[in-house]
Amino acid sequence: MLDLKLYLLDKRKQIDASLHRILETAPRPTARIVEAMRYALMSGGKRLRPVLCLAACESVGGNAEHAMPVACALEMIHAYSLIHDDLPAMDDDCLRRGRPTCHIAFDDATAILAGDALLTLAFETLSSREIRKKVHAEHWLDIISVISVAAGYKGMVEGQMRDMLAERQGCLLLSELEELHLLKTGALIEASVCSGALLGQGSFDQIVSLKVYSKNIGLAFQVTDDILNVEGDPLIMGKGAGTDQHRCKSTYPSLLGLPEAKEVASRLIAHAIESLERFDHKANPLRAIASYIINRNR
Amino acid sequence: MLDLKLYLLDKRKQIDASLHRILETAPRPTARIVEAMRYALMSGGKRLRPVLCLAACESVGGNAEHAMPVACALEMIHAYSLIHDDLPAMDDDCLRRGRPTCHIAFDDATAILAGDALLTLAFETLSSREIRKKVHAEHWLDIISVISVAAGYKGMVEGQMRDMLAERQGCLLLSELEELHLLKTGALIEASVCSGALLGQGSFDQIVSLKVYSKNIGLAFQVTDDILNVEGDPLIMGKGAGTDQHRCKSTYPSLLGLPEAKEVASRLIAHAIESLERFDHKANPLRAIASYIINRNR
Repeated sequence: MLDLKLYLLDKRKQIDASLHRILETAPRPTARIVEAMRYALMSGGKRLRPVLCLAACESVGGNAEHAMPVACALEMIHAYSLIHDDLPAMDDDCLRRGRPTCHIAFDDATAILAGDALLTLAFETLSSREIRKKVHAEHWLDIISVISVAAGYKGMVEGQMRDMLAERQGCLLLSELEELHLLKTGALIEASVCSGALLGQGSFDQIVSLKVYSKNIGLAFQVTDDILNVEGDPLIMGKGAGTDQHRCKSTYPSLLGLPEAKEVASRLIAHAIESLERFDHKANPLRAIASYIINRNR
Repeated sequence: MLDLKLYLLDKRKQIDASLHRILETAPRPTARIVEAMRYALMSGGKRLRPVLCLAACESVGGNAEHAMPVACALEMIHAYSLIHDDLPAMDDDCLRRGRPTCHIAFDDATAILAGDALLTLAFETLSSREIRKKVHAEHWLDIISVISVAAGYKGMVEGQMRDMLAERQGCLLLSELEELHLLKTGALIEASVCSGALLGQGSFDQIVSLKVYSKNIGLAFQVTDDILNVEGDPLIMGKGAGTDQHRCKSTYPSLLGLPEAKEVASRLIAHAIESLERFDHKANPLRAIASYIINRNR
C-alpha cells in the first residue's frame, strides 16, 4: 500500500531542494528581484504540478530524477501566475497561503518583474546544457512546446483573461465555467502530467490515457476549490472563506448547488482513476493523488 | 554598396508578415488577449532585434529564412517588455510610438496578461515541431537558453528592476548606469546577434567577435536614446522629448554633458565595426546597422 502522505512529503522535499538550489546559484542571490522570486516560490505550496509531473514520469517507468528540471519549471510558472493574478489590477488579493502576497511584501513593480523573471527562468531551466546529458534534446523541445502552449494565450493566460472578463460580466453558463477552468488551471495540470510522461518516454497510448486523467483531476481540483471556498476553514485555506460569494463570482456550488457540485467532483475523480486501468502499480501515486484532490483540507 | 534603407525595409516586411501569420493562426484570433498582443506587437517598431538576428545569421553564412522564428521570438520578448515597462506600476507611460500604450488602449489587467502571453509565445515559437525540420533540436535548445538567460533575472528583468530602484534613489555613477543599460537593453541585443549567429552555425571565434559587436552597439543604442531624449523631436520620437530630464533620471548627457555623450556613442560604434574586421561583405548589413544606430531619427 502506498502511503501518500509520505510520498508527497518526500517529493516536496526534493522539489523544494531543487528550486532552492536554482535560486541559490543566481549571480546575485540577495538582489531584490531574486528575493521576490524566492518569496513567491518558496512559500510552502502543495507543489501539486511538480509532484504530478514526477508521478507521471514514474507511472510510465521513467526516472523521476531526470524529470526534476521539468517539475521545477512547472512550479515556477505556477508561482508566476499566482503573483500576477494577485496584483491590484487583477484579483487584488492581499493574502496567499496565509502570508502577504508578493506585491504587498514588496511592491507592484517588483511583483510584476518577479513574475516575469520566474516565467523566463522556467524556460532557462528547461534548456540548460547540463540537463541534456541524460535526456535527448528533441524530448526537451517537445516538453518546452507542451508547457509553453499550456501556459500561454491558448491555455492559462486565456483562462485568466476570461476570468477577469467574467467578473465584469457577471453570471456564466456551466459550459463557460468549465471551459474557463480547463484553460485557467486545467491546461497547466495537463501539461504537468504530459511533460512528465514525455520525459519518461511513455507510449502514445499511455499519454492519451494520462490526458484523460489530467483533464478530470484538473477540473475536479477547481470544483473542490469552489466547494472549499464555500465551506472551508479560512485558517486552512490561507485566504478568507466565502470570498467568491462576496464577489458574486460564478462557481460550481453557485450554479449547481453544493451537493451536486460534490457529486460532480467525485465523478470526475472516478473517471480519472478509471483512465489509468491499464497502468500497473507504478501509477499508484497518480491514483492516490486523484483521491487526495477532492479530500484535501477536510 | 549596401542600401541599408532598402535592406531594413525588406527585412521588416518579412518579419511583420511572419509575426502576423503567427497571431493569425491563434485558436481565437479575435479574442481580447490576441487583440492586445497584436496591438502591442504590430505597432510599427524599428524591429531592431529581429533584424540584428537575421543579419547576424547572414554574416556567418547562414540562411536568414531559418532564423525567422528566432527573429519573431525576440520581437515578442521586446514587445512584452515594453508593455510591462509602460504599466502604471512601472514607468507609467501613456504613449509609445505615438499611440496609446497597451494598458491605455485596453486596461492594466489585459496589458499584464498580453505581456505574459507574448513572452510565453516566444518560447512556443522556438520549440514548435515545424521549425525542427531545417535546424537540429540541439541548436534550438542552445538558442532558447541564450534568449531566456538574457531576458530574465540575469539580464533584462534585472535591468528594469535596477532602473526602477534608480528612479527612487536618484543619481547613479557612470559605471552603474552602464551596467544598468548592459542588462536592460544590452543583454537582449547581444542575445539577438548571438542567437542569429548560432542558428547560422557561426564558429566560436565569430561568435566571440559578434559579442563584442553587440555589446558596443547595445550601449551606443542607449547612449543615443538618452541624447535623442534631450534634443530629439517629440514627433519623431513618439514620446515627449525631455521626459528623462523632467524625471531627474541619470543619463549619459546628464552625467557626461551632451558633447562627451556623443563622443562616447561614436567610439562605441567604431569599436563595434572594428570587431567585424575578419568578416567579409556578408557582414555589411551589421556594419551599416551600427552606423544607423547613432544616426537614426536625426
